[in-house]
Amino acid sequence: MKISIIGVGLIGGSMALKLRTKGIADFIYGIDQSEKHLTEALDLNIIDEKADLESGIKSSDLIILAVPVDAAKKLLPKVLDLVSEHQTVMDAGSTKSGIVNAVKDHPNRARFVAFHPMWGTEDNGPKSAVSESFSGKAGVICNREESAPDALRLVERIAESLDMHLIYMNAESHDVHTAYISHISHITSYALANTVLEKEREEETIFQLASSGFSSTVRLAKSHPEMWVPIFRQNKENVLDVLNEHISQLRKFKSALEKENFEYLGELIANANKIRGILDK
Amino acid sequence: MKISIIGVGLIGGSMALKLRTKGIADFIYGIDQSEKHLTEALDLNIIDEKADLESGIKSSDLIILAVPVDAAKKLLPKVLDLVSEHQTVMDAGSTKSGIVNAVKDHPNRARFVAFHPMWGTEDNGPKSAVSESFSGKAGVICNREESAPDALRLVERIAESLDMHLIYMNAESHDVHTAYISHISHITSYALANTVLEKEREEETIFQLASSGFSSTVRLAKSHPEMWVPIFRQNKENVLDVLNEHISQLRKFKSALEKENFEYLGELIANANKIRGILDK
Repeated sequence: MKISIIGVGLIGGSMALKLRTKGIADFIYGIDQSEKHLTEALDLNIIDEKADLESGIKSSDLIILAVPVDAAKKLLPKVLDLVSEHQTVMDAGSTKSGIVNAVKDHPNRARFVAFHPMWGTEDNGPKSAVSESFSGKAGVICNREESAPDALRLVERIAESLDMHLIYMNAESHDVHTAYISHISHITSYALANTVLEKEREEETIFQLASSGFSSTVRLAKSHPEMWVPIFRQNKENVLDVLNEHISQLRKFKSALEKENFEYLGELIANANKIRGILDK
Repeated sequence: MKISIIGVGLIGGSMALKLRTKGIADFIYGIDQSEKHLTEALDLNIIDEKADLESGIKSSDLIILAVPVDAAKKLLPKVLDLVSEHQTVMDAGSTKSGIVNAVKDHPNRARFVAFHPMWGTEDNGPKSAVSESFSGKAGVICNREESAPDALRLVERIAESLDMHLIYMNAESHDVHTAYISHISHITSYALANTVLEKEREEETIFQLASSGFSSTVRLAKSHPEMWVPIFRQNKENVLDVLNEHISQLRKFKSALEKENFEYLGELIANANKIRGILDK
């Protein structure tokens, strides 16, 4: 199968590596605004050839859109304009309502499968791509009834080749759940980094003392605004809803401390401990 | 050297394993309220013999106090009552002002060295002890001028045997810095877990969708109240100070989203990204 990857960064690059290893991809075109990323992707054997949007799409069975969600929303209608009934388009974005709504009346809507691989790191660019990134992770397909059966089957096969387990939900539910499970973690982590940077003027001390616990909690704060501002913009209502809850949860800790109600503090912590039972299933 | 370890859990157990490997510890007495932990520690070859407080201390050159900080504060004066000028006592607690103040007028104060290894996990008990836990991490010695030179030298040798790099500061500074770098991370993580548990009633969905990012940010929320309530209690003022700053940082994200000021949102994120430069030095 010939595949065009639009956006040869962390996600697109990791998919390319794995699909090549699995023998699914015979030839991979790379399409990217960044010449630097294209050159790196060629050097790393992530892509076979760089291409422009039209020629890459024309020659491909599958087109994978792996760019920030604002760019994806703008680009997808143009991509669908160019495809025939024998081609399939999938995305990899962290928000789903925006992109699904952007093409809901497009004549080629059925050629598109809305996909979200639940994996990412704070790094970006083809150099951070890793073949095994997606193994064991969830791959979410949204609004499957809006895709043609053969397009859906192809994307399911791609997800399985990435060693992901598939989950189906509608785009609205997806955006609610990811606000809880992914987007709020990033805001927390950014705010924590800003807190420490604000309060702790002695950078050397941060560096010297930073324990593995701190590094773990603040890891996501390294994630770039180019990717995350568009996600927060598209999922604004859900993120605000969870953020309000998060602030009110932090206020409970504040109140327990201020009132020296350490029994209540212990209850708050014991409740949080329940996450262990859920995550370590 | 003969060593008594009071509290054969994650920290005490990990120290024991490493000090035995390094040949520093010839014989290790385990002292613990939990018979279960003592039996496990014997089975795991963490300790050579279980002992009661008096007999263990009497037979040891070094006594390591590795219990929750409230218990440590109560226990240390009793331990110092029992030691002679040829014995050294060190602790491993995450707060330092409380314990240092508890013994500041004790006649044997000079035999005590206040120590904090900047490492921990969300697990507890001897079964989670790992020999290499402390390698490359910071070990903080507080108020070194209050310890006898030979006691200080011994604890420095212990920290070096654990492959830690040493930092010296006074107890008050330590408690300020750890509020920033360690304690607030735990509150953030607990509050995030409670947020998700409150909002996301579908536990199965949390489990299925939870990405590595979420798991990383929420990892510390698995840490037990028995250890953390006493830390927050002893470091209340500093933790409240940082918690207030953290809530106000989260409010900036909230305000940027509510006002759809995505340029400001991008600035907040770009500022948080600076943590990369500090942590990845």
